[in-house]
Amino acid sequence: MKPGTLYGVGLGPGDPELVTVRAARVVHDAETIAYFAKAGRDSHARKIAKPYLRSGCEEILLTYPMTTERPFLKPEYVDALHGFYEESAVRLAAILEQGRDVALLCEGDPMFYGSFMHLFERLRERFRVEICAGVSGMSGCFAAAQQPMTWGDDVLCVVPATLEEHALERRLAVADAAVVMKIGGNFLKLRRVLTRLRMIERAIYVERGTMEGQKLMPLLEKTDDVAPYFAMVLVPGRGRRP
Amino acid sequence: MKPGTLYGVGLGPGDPELVTVRAARVVHDAETIAYFAKAGRDSHARKIAKPYLRSGCEEILLTYPMTTERPFLKPEYVDALHGFYEESAVRLAAILEQGRDVALLCEGDPMFYGSFMHLFERLRERFRVEICAGVSGMSGCFAAAQQPMTWGDDVLCVVPATLEEHALERRLAVADAAVVMKIGGNFLKLRRVLTRLRMIERAIYVERGTMEGQKLMPLLEKTDDVAPYFAMVLVPGRGRRP
Repeated sequence: MKPGTLYGVGLGPGDPELVTVRAARVVHDAETIAYFAKAGRDSHARKIAKPYLRSGCEEILLTYPMTTERPFLKPEYVDALHGFYEESAVRLAAILEQGRDVALLCEGDPMFYGSFMHLFERLRERFRVEICAGVSGMSGCFAAAQQPMTWGDDVLCVVPATLEEHALERRLAVADAAVVMKIGGNFLKLRRVLTRLRMIERAIYVERGTMEGQKLMPLLEKTDDVAPYFAMVLVPGRGRRP
Repeated sequence: MKPGTLYGVGLGPGDPELVTVRAARVVHDAETIAYFAKAGRDSHARKIAKPYLRSGCEEILLTYPMTTERPFLKPEYVDALHGFYEESAVRLAAILEQGRDVALLCEGDPMFYGSFMHLFERLRERFRVEICAGVSGMSGCFAAAQQPMTWGDDVLCVVPATLEEHALERRLAVADAAVVMKIGGNFLKLRRVLTRLRMIERAIYVERGTMEGQKLMPLLEKTDDVAPYFAMVLVPGRGRRP
């Protein structure tokens, strides 16, 4: 039997209207969808895809083995995650082997910090895979903030705030424009680094960009140091503007 | 009279199916569209939007003052471009002042190296603006190459190959993953830098990603040194893969 195709479907930053025409079609045609979710939480990807789902399609829920939003580098965590991806790949392979297609729903762009990539690497040799590029979470934030980000020959660095303070500073020091992700408990460290680099004056804090409850403000106006893990800080470039 | 709204409509990397549902709607509802094009060339943005255009909508063509694809830093060039953006802003303002909306068509994502940003900065104080985020050209290339780009805490740098060799090397040296744009005549310089940084072994050359005539190959297998200005080189990250 001809095996099925695995679709990696990028669904954009959160607003269902920011789904591409292609992703909407693939989701609508799918008889089987799969998506990641944290234990006891709704899947964000499924919520974005909901207006496009056909009724009665089969749904495969892949539940992350941890309940925190803060990833740790502890061996137990890495082991648990490894087991989870292995097992999820086996579950999807069983369906694909029956000749059925699976649309794996992904927030943002599937090839940009996406959980999808871990299943893609495990299944790509055995099955046909199609990738639907999506609007990245950061592009959603640029639009939400109405903030042009990169001009002319600006260099953009996308940097996780989880890096050690020195490493974070070394990367941001060569950036004209920056997007800092994974803020959470790293907020104070990030504020120190941006202050030393004199980037803080133009930095913008974005929480829940393009979604309900969106918060946007110049970073200098943020008076507390509490930020969710998925908040972002944008540092716009200042390149050529003829 | 209530002035019109300027829409900055991101249309994605080239495939009309990678237009968002929102952009398709905005384009379809638009009575007036505007787009940039090089003299004597079709507008790429208009071509992407074509399936969604309503028949009989008014079209405003904004023709760049230069015929080459290589931007120069010469003062005459900057002056010509300045005049062009000023004049284009005046043309759109005249329509917006009549209470009519204008949808400005943009390749990729409007806030990411987009010509739109130059008109946005000139019109944002006087008119309501809505930004439709789009799939960036680089996300289109990640999907076309079926290449996961950033894992775990990888730092991604987006770097124009137009930088001086030393500056290019300094940026790429702190990157785990990189997207190099604006290749053209900078190809040999880029190859030298990637070779010195030992990034060339995993670099991928992409020409016309997601479009007709797409070319994809490991950079090491590219035997000539001819590349169009809009080619890209992807250097995938190698971060955590549980």
